[in-house]
Amino acid sequence: MSITVVGSVAFDAVKTPFGARERMLGGAATHFALAASFFDQIQVVGRVGPDFGDEELAVLATRGTDVADVERVPDGRTFFWAGEYGWDLNSRETLDTQLGVFEDFRPRLSAASRACDVLFLANIQPELQADVLEQCREPKFVAMDSMNLWIDIAREALVDVIGRVDCVIFNDAELRQLTEKPSIVAAAREVLAMGPSVVVAKQGEYGSALLTDGQYFAIPAYPLERVVDPTGAGDTFAGGFMGYLARHLDHNELSEPVLRQAMAYGTALASYNVEEFGTERMERLTAAEVDARVEELQRITQFEHVAVLQTS
Amino acid sequence: MSITVVGSVAFDAVKTPFGARERMLGGAATHFALAASFFDQIQVVGRVGPDFGDEELAVLATRGTDVADVERVPDGRTFFWAGEYGWDLNSRETLDTQLGVFEDFRPRLSAASRACDVLFLANIQPELQADVLEQCREPKFVAMDSMNLWIDIAREALVDVIGRVDCVIFNDAELRQLTEKPSIVAAAREVLAMGPSVVVAKQGEYGSALLTDGQYFAIPAYPLERVVDPTGAGDTFAGGFMGYLARHLDHNELSEPVLRQAMAYGTALASYNVEEFGTERMERLTAAEVDARVEELQRITQFEHVAVLQTS
Repeated sequence: MSITVVGSVAFDAVKTPFGARERMLGGAATHFALAASFFDQIQVVGRVGPDFGDEELAVLATRGTDVADVERVPDGRTFFWAGEYGWDLNSRETLDTQLGVFEDFRPRLSAASRACDVLFLANIQPELQADVLEQCREPKFVAMDSMNLWIDIAREALVDVIGRVDCVIFNDAELRQLTEKPSIVAAAREVLAMGPSVVVAKQGEYGSALLTDGQYFAIPAYPLERVVDPTGAGDTFAGGFMGYLARHLDHNELSEPVLRQAMAYGTALASYNVEEFGTERMERLTAAEVDARVEELQRITQFEHVAVLQTS
Repeated sequence: MSITVVGSVAFDAVKTPFGARERMLGGAATHFALAASFFDQIQVVGRVGPDFGDEELAVLATRGTDVADVERVPDGRTFFWAGEYGWDLNSRETLDTQLGVFEDFRPRLSAASRACDVLFLANIQPELQADVLEQCREPKFVAMDSMNLWIDIAREALVDVIGRVDCVIFNDAELRQLTEKPSIVAAAREVLAMGPSVVVAKQGEYGSALLTDGQYFAIPAYPLERVVDPTGAGDTFAGGFMGYLARHLDHNELSEPVLRQAMAYGTALASYNVEEFGTERMERLTAAEVDARVEELQRITQFEHVAVLQTS
């Protein structure tokens, strides 16, 4: 199996109540790769400028990730995002966005990237997501992210892409905005009707929910004493979720138990990501730590059911 | 075992995207009693005006609840609250609050109410909560709710009451406001240090978390296609949680498994409460329905853990 991710590779400036970084490695594809690389061979498809150094490229290549499809153009600057988080880290303000060389990003996948079994379309223009879909040969499982901007200005193209993927990984606000349904259950039902067989609703500090035809699963976020930087949590979650699925695609055909375990791995990885700034924690994270946190997640969510009322 | 609840009995006017009610039975003690009455003998301590009729009293007495301590004063009006919920039911605006006879509420507990094993101090002035604590003989388990107003204007008295109860049942915003800690884990730790052995963090549509010394448990809300009226969900949760605990106090001394099951019962009952306006759904709810939803909650939260990374 191999996994291809198409999306932003960026520099972020982030300020949170616990500190700040002026310029650190970020971007959706970066966070995805640092998580998914625990499970499988990853190819990153992206575009950076001459300010993107060998050091950053080495971090992106952590755990064997193939960065050959990260195009380094000679002019311009790498995508730059600056944001500041509020006191409880649940709100954030974008202070600056400079698309740089990402503005002209037209993903061109190498043979290796096209031959992937699993494909993640991180948040980029729906038209580009559709273009990537056409380049890929026969991926067994495709998931996508998006954002409020595309729901606003490119709704038709977005719905078209949704109709061609297996799974959408959106946050609650995006699901509500897209469907105009206040209930996440109702919103997910509408998205499933557009084509996908799996909807993942990301819920920030509260965890996430998995909705398929007739099944529902919810998992809380791992409880942390201190969240230092939430940037990239959603893409890290997606990386863990899809990495786990890639490992199990051959045997199980996405059985409900495997999807749930994938949710747990995504949750565990995301919780490590937010413990430090940017990619700092994920760079040195170990497989044993990931497994241990999934075990802990199981411990904090299980309860015995005794039907006390009927039997009394 | 018997459970005493002290708090508001009220009329509510509520508007939600799914309809409106001009005047329906409400109040914290009402919602608590309608849930806790599935488990045990409940005594309600409250105060209403002459506008509170026998019909409302009969609803309050559902499943055998003792309403002898609901003082009916001849003059004035019953506490009235009016509010309107936003599109996704996660925000609400208070349109009117008329304390009426509740303004002079000085709880005086009968012998039966004083002799309770379990006591719930619903959201009232901390000084009154302290007064009730002094009246009760030897409750085995006491929990309390509060609100942002008392954190603002009666913080010292509130912290004093917190120091004398076994459990606080607050929402996330109240825990953060009280402790000035952004992390719920850190906030709960600080509240535990004030005296209680259990902190329950209510998280609205996302469920709730249970924090004790060294243990953490989280349970999602039951997924609903349609939430009609969230009013009273928190008190219904508290009623189910404490009702379940009352049933098991003798045997288990609040073991972690029993606390977790209590969280599941609270969650199940709260989910029924929000399906219809006010007390409408809870009045005709059956024990079999409650048990069935707890079973369903278990189904939607369980996953197998296979340590895939370490063993590969």
